[in-house]
Amino acid sequence: MLRRLLLAHARRRRHYSSSFSSALPLASPTFAVFGANTGVGKTLVSAGLAASLLRSPTASPSAVLYLKPLQTGFPADSDAGFLFRRVPALLRPSTAARLVASLDTLSCSPSLEPPPPSPEEAAFSYAGEGETVRKILTCRTLYAWREAVSPHLAVEREGMAVEDAHVRSRLAACLVEGEDLGEGEGEVWKLIETAGGVASPGPSGTLQCDLYRPFRLPTILVGDGRLGGISSTLSAYETLLLRGYDISAVILEDRGLSNDMFLLSYLRNRVPVLVLPPIPEDPSDDLTDWLSESSSVFGLLKDALQSFHSRRIQRLNSMQRKSKDLLWWPFTQHNLVPVDSVTVIDSRCGESFSTYKVKDNKMMMIPQFDACASWWTQGPDSNLQMELARDMGYAAGRYGHVMFPENAHEPALRCAELLLGGVGKDWASRVYYSDNGSTAIEIALKMAFRKFSFDHGILLDSDKSMTNERNIQLKVLALQGSYHGDTLGAMEAQAPSAYTSFLQQPWYSGRGLFLDPPTVFIRNETCCLSLPQSIQHGHLSPGDKCIPSLAEVFCNTRDSSYAADLYSTYISQQLSEYSLSSNTEHVAALIIEPVIQGAGGMHMIDPLFQRLLVKECRNRKIPVIFDEVFTGFWRLGVESASELLGCLPDIACYAKLMTGGIVPLAATVTTEGVFEAFKSDSKLTALLHGHSYTAHAMGCSAAVKAIQWFRDPSTNLNLDLDRKRLKELWDGTLVNQLSSLPNVSRVVSLGTLCAIELKAEGSDAGYASLYARCLIQQLREEDDLYVRPLGNVIYLMCGPCTARDSCTEQLSKVYRRISSFNPVH
Amino acid sequence: MLRRLLLAHARRRRHYSSSFSSALPLASPTFAVFGANTGVGKTLVSAGLAASLLRSPTASPSAVLYLKPLQTGFPADSDAGFLFRRVPALLRPSTAARLVASLDTLSCSPSLEPPPPSPEEAAFSYAGEGETVRKILTCRTLYAWREAVSPHLAVEREGMAVEDAHVRSRLAACLVEGEDLGEGEGEVWKLIETAGGVASPGPSGTLQCDLYRPFRLPTILVGDGRLGGISSTLSAYETLLLRGYDISAVILEDRGLSNDMFLLSYLRNRVPVLVLPPIPEDPSDDLTDWLSESSSVFGLLKDALQSFHSRRIQRLNSMQRKSKDLLWWPFTQHNLVPVDSVTVIDSRCGESFSTYKVKDNKMMMIPQFDACASWWTQGPDSNLQMELARDMGYAAGRYGHVMFPENAHEPALRCAELLLGGVGKDWASRVYYSDNGSTAIEIALKMAFRKFSFDHGILLDSDKSMTNERNIQLKVLALQGSYHGDTLGAMEAQAPSAYTSFLQQPWYSGRGLFLDPPTVFIRNETCCLSLPQSIQHGHLSPGDKCIPSLAEVFCNTRDSSYAADLYSTYISQQLSEYSLSSNTEHVAALIIEPVIQGAGGMHMIDPLFQRLLVKECRNRKIPVIFDEVFTGFWRLGVESASELLGCLPDIACYAKLMTGGIVPLAATVTTEGVFEAFKSDSKLTALLHGHSYTAHAMGCSAAVKAIQWFRDPSTNLNLDLDRKRLKELWDGTLVNQLSSLPNVSRVVSLGTLCAIELKAEGSDAGYASLYARCLIQQLREEDDLYVRPLGNVIYLMCGPCTARDSCTEQLSKVYRRISSFNPVH
Repeated sequence: MLRRLLLAHARRRRHYSSSFSSALPLASPTFAVFGANTGVGKTLVSAGLAASLLRSPTASPSAVLYLKPLQTGFPADSDAGFLFRRVPALLRPSTAARLVASLDTLSCSPSLEPPPPSPEEAAFSYAGEGETVRKILTCRTLYAWREAVSPHLAVEREGMAVEDAHVRSRLAACLVEGEDLGEGEGEVWKLIETAGGVASPGPSGTLQCDLYRPFRLPTILVGDGRLGGISSTLSAYETLLLRGYDISAVILEDRGLSNDMFLLSYLRNRVPVLVLPPIPEDPSDDLTDWLSESSSVFGLLKDALQSFHSRRIQRLNSMQRKSKDLLWWPFTQHNLVPVDSVTVIDSRCGESFSTYKVKDNKMMMIPQFDACASWWTQGPDSNLQMELARDMGYAAGRYGHVMFPENAHEPALRCAELLLGGVGKDWASRVYYSDNGSTAIEIALKMAFRKFSFDHGILLDSDKSMTNERNIQLKVLALQGSYHGDTLGAMEAQAPSAYTSFLQQPWYSGRGLFLDPPTVFIRNETCCLSLPQSIQHGHLSPGDKCIPSLAEVFCNTRDSSYAADLYSTYISQQLSEYSLSSNTEHVAALIIEPVIQGAGGMHMIDPLFQRLLVKECRNRKIPVIFDEVFTGFWRLGVESASELLGCLPDIACYAKLMTGGIVPLAATVTTEGVFEAFKSDSKLTALLHGHSYTAHAMGCSAAVKAIQWFRDPSTNLNLDLDRKRLKELWDGTLVNQLSSLPNVSRVVSLGTLCAIELKAEGSDAGYASLYARCLIQQLREEDDLYVRPLGNVIYLMCGPCTARDSCTEQLSKVYRRISSFNPVH
Repeated sequence: MLRRLLLAHARRRRHYSSSFSSALPLASPTFAVFGANTGVGKTLVSAGLAASLLRSPTASPSAVLYLKPLQTGFPADSDAGFLFRRVPALLRPSTAARLVASLDTLSCSPSLEPPPPSPEEAAFSYAGEGETVRKILTCRTLYAWREAVSPHLAVEREGMAVEDAHVRSRLAACLVEGEDLGEGEGEVWKLIETAGGVASPGPSGTLQCDLYRPFRLPTILVGDGRLGGISSTLSAYETLLLRGYDISAVILEDRGLSNDMFLLSYLRNRVPVLVLPPIPEDPSDDLTDWLSESSSVFGLLKDALQSFHSRRIQRLNSMQRKSKDLLWWPFTQHNLVPVDSVTVIDSRCGESFSTYKVKDNKMMMIPQFDACASWWTQGPDSNLQMELARDMGYAAGRYGHVMFPENAHEPALRCAELLLGGVGKDWASRVYYSDNGSTAIEIALKMAFRKFSFDHGILLDSDKSMTNERNIQLKVLALQGSYHGDTLGAMEAQAPSAYTSFLQQPWYSGRGLFLDPPTVFIRNETCCLSLPQSIQHGHLSPGDKCIPSLAEVFCNTRDSSYAADLYSTYISQQLSEYSLSSNTEHVAALIIEPVIQGAGGMHMIDPLFQRLLVKECRNRKIPVIFDEVFTGFWRLGVESASELLGCLPDIACYAKLMTGGIVPLAATVTTEGVFEAFKSDSKLTALLHGHSYTAHAMGCSAAVKAIQWFRDPSTNLNLDLDRKRLKELWDGTLVNQLSSLPNVSRVVSLGTLCAIELKAEGSDAGYASLYARCLIQQLREEDDLYVRPLGNVIYLMCGPCTARDSCTEQLSKVYRRISSFNPVH
């Protein structure tokens, strides 16, 4: 049985991570009813609330849709049936209730197709002042099992397994259909009653709170009035919070223990707490009296929910305007952002945003695949996101933040162990923490310069005067098109670009020798090598420029190719010319983004060229820095891009994906040799660079979880058999087709990245280009794909655990759009 | 009753935040027994475990101490009594059990003094192989009430209120005393059984999980085997995690629902799950049979706990060495840090670290007041820390991280609203987010330079060639001794110092006009003004140099003083000289830390001087930047230090305390005028600076909570009546006494900061000085005060909500140490 459960668990994981793509209408107030425990009266609360809503003599609300997605003990137990039978009886005596339909068909079905509609539906007519008001109550059970046990056990005993994705899509379909119930005459309210407590397993084993998380419906928490009920109510409340639910009201039965009074006090200013009279325990009591007696409380509940709903919608509607007025977005020309193009992100679940949009005058909550991985940070599927949420709560509860120098704490130490045993394996022995990619780079440069100075005797005389030292100019060796961050030190290590103009940073001067690198890409289904002007390539035959496959590109047999000779000559020539030109200037560090230049436009640099660069610098005792801020942690399909290059650095920088994509943290990882260059008996030779939150516990804890998660084949199903690389995520055929489109100039597909450069000339190309604008808009608005271009380069980026199917789905959308893309000039 | 509860709640809050200062022994395995709910069998588990421990025929464990801190329904219900009566009966028949004492005195006492020891204690002797082994069981109830309700209700009905601090200190005393039980002959195990569920209220209303949080004992969670028990067990588990507890085992009764199987699968690789046979429901059953039947399970529990304990101790013992070997601490000369001086921080609770130390060969967990507020970041008391933990879980669960440009999400927007309505009130209208103080400064500089260029026509011609622009040199106006961060751009804005040497950053040149500021401090109980050489002060009388009070220093009547004339002359003279010296160099921004220069040595700059600087720059249309990274958010007793200066900036930078001190986040806040300078129809004029985690949801959520928490008099009891400043936190008399000590050269006390400069000369002064080293060591080791000096400057820093009593306690320690400080040269 344990084995079966473990298997079920693995299944559950897979299901939960499957993407969810239904848009949900938002105009109708829709609430999930969760329970602090079983038997706390979720169904009674639903019934009382439904009655309270239908009792209103005005036209609105005009209908209530009650859904019980998972029912066990059926048909003897049927919460939908209970509401259907009891609610009409609760309406005022003056009400003329007319039954329209009472289909009692068991709508339980483990089949993949939703069953034919079989709601229990009642319509009522009110004689209001002068006119008759029609009200509708529809109650539906989506899946049911006979035994009165938890759904996961019922499935085990009766079969009829159902996947999470199916429960969700059927529920979503019901919610969408439900819109029509009101017949355009008034609000429809929708209530979804969950099964058991907040963390009770559903049919696949996924907890209730996780199963419904993609909807993130506002929640009514039915608390527990019994002895111990304060504890179970507050714990359930926290379990919901940890999944990012908003709790709109807590309601519980009075069992004489004043639990409500305590909860009212504890939860004040957070959520309204309502108390119901004791529920009669006599099983023969049909609860009609109790429900009438409770009607004023349900009236208050209705008001609280109504007010919650209005505030929510009002806020959502105001967010575009307010954000335009108060925020200052980075890398954004505000004049080019119309108010109605601001994306309101209500939440995220795994790889998708949940965005608020008004489409055809309808307010909707729409999932959008986050195809830029939120600036290349994202790794979590929905399971990892939940795990990280729990870990973040734990880290904050245990440590908050504790300072780092001369101290040890578990998350920082454990993270260092994982880094040194992973991306730093076989070469690194020290971890220096900071906050983001830019700071990690500034630290790396300081380390490299010190190491260089140390190795080349520049600092031998510690009494040397400042003036003398300042005459020595240390520079970096770097590549054209590289990008290492936005702080001045990081910028100085990159070649001039749009980012570095006087307008942007008057202090930028560009302290480097910047080489032109050869690049690799796919065009017309062929893997091509492109050499810059500066590399003499008269002798490179057309055949040399076509490489049979991407795998071959990385193959170190190329080290003895003719291209290797060309590269080596170019590199050593450049370095020699430079060193001849000045006695006081030294190339004191090599800094490269291994394999892929990100912000520079998603260019794949010929790995052979980078390998030879590293080799040449090693010979000259120039420290080598790998900027793995973008490329690290499986971004390119391997944990460290140095595995692709086939050579190792002295210093490497990590950030972005390191925490899984939840919170900023960076690490500069180095050899012991670099560390040694800072040791002495004086504090003045120590590396005097730090940030207040250095090695903060939450960031390190997230990194510990994420690093392990990505490496573990039981959590990362994309790992290849040898566990050393990810399976192909972007369908090779589609990639090839894309590369053959007439308006595509190149494609780069590696690991979690697939980049497509659109053919463009003049001002249509480059970073400031608005060329792809309407394409982007189509993808965002019509394909629910959140894309942000780099000028005329469009890219898709997933997480290391994203299901291949989902990648294919997104890439197909892009293919369709680009095939028919015809920019207006 | 509601009012009473609300009052109780306020009390609870106060109590929970009161500091906790007992050192706890760590050698004895000590576990807290929490329940997923009431009635799940915590006492039976404790009994079974105690029996299992005592049954061992070896000498170790030699004793079990069972504590029930809070008992209701007493004396009819006495869990301690149950263990005391039942456990001996469970030991093997061969055991010769001898009762030593059976004091049944009610140890309930609401008085402040712990009652005389009245344990129920039993000793047993085993006839082992050859020799007799003595075992001891001691069972104690600490507080008891008659009615069988939750302790908070019992207090309401019976009186006998007891404060959290008393429960904790009595419990701590018992745990310390318990060490002697073993008589040095074997391990003592200690079990603390909590009351009700994990979140059940204690006598003051504080939840069980919060009440015992300062101990952060490893936890046994007794799960729930009943229907709904999976949910309540997992929710309870999460409630414990949110408080930073480590759960060493989950154990639950089998009620035929296979809850254990599901939990085993769900919690695998996290925590062992054990299942007990069904507990007989017949009240006449004395459970002896059940307990014997369960003995093998308790044996497994014992093993799991033993292994947990050993791994914990082993890890704690290895952390100093491993950290020394793998980590690279910022601002730290590793050669100067002996392995045994590394502080192992196990957790934090409010203002205190919990540090692991071996003292006199005893392993201890020792609270240390974090007197450097973890590099000036800290604000949380233990209540806020808990709130932040919950919010961090929620933010991660709801958003993870979502990208920012052109998007809106609630935490970023709400945080911006709070910033603009608070620190930015009356002047600012835009918020630019980044990751830390350094990045906020780099962004501020870019903003100021653009604004300056815009206002002074430098960028009128957008086609102007790069070369021309590069000829223009923009500089900052800044103060000697200032510090704005460690990235190159931030460093360039500060005067040369130890941090900026060639050794540290060969690219540093110091792009500023750096003025010498006058400073203010307390010496010999007098508030003194100290003018630098560069300001002509021949005419300033000795009387002018003594200011009657600190309040007077900030008074704007000084604007018409003679000092004001001197300052103005100096400032305008310096600026004029500078602008004459070059046609291409411009002072394009003023950047100051308002009132206090932090890293420069905790110097208070004469606010009059800074006010006049701002005025002069306004006249010259030079944008003004306030670096409030250190001074912001009540650090100096007011929300923004600009309130102290009496003037406003164009741009201000915030970080550190903004998130309450939990996670990195920074904001650069500006006027609309600055924002306008970046608007055009081209992306190239937009501010092209950003970090991947810009406006990350967790940071913004933390800031939203912290900003509100500090401002709200119901959560921040330190707020003055007008809610605009903090009450005096550092006792004025003590501060004056300190300032009169012969080895103290100056004291600065403002808001949450109290800095003391020790008299020192030559290499004993300044950043690299090790002068205060032995003093620091004494404070850390003997006074449990975590202090980190800035050279010969020692400072204490608390949070905006820290209780004044606690501040006085810490400052007294420092006073005592400094009075007797006699450094060896």
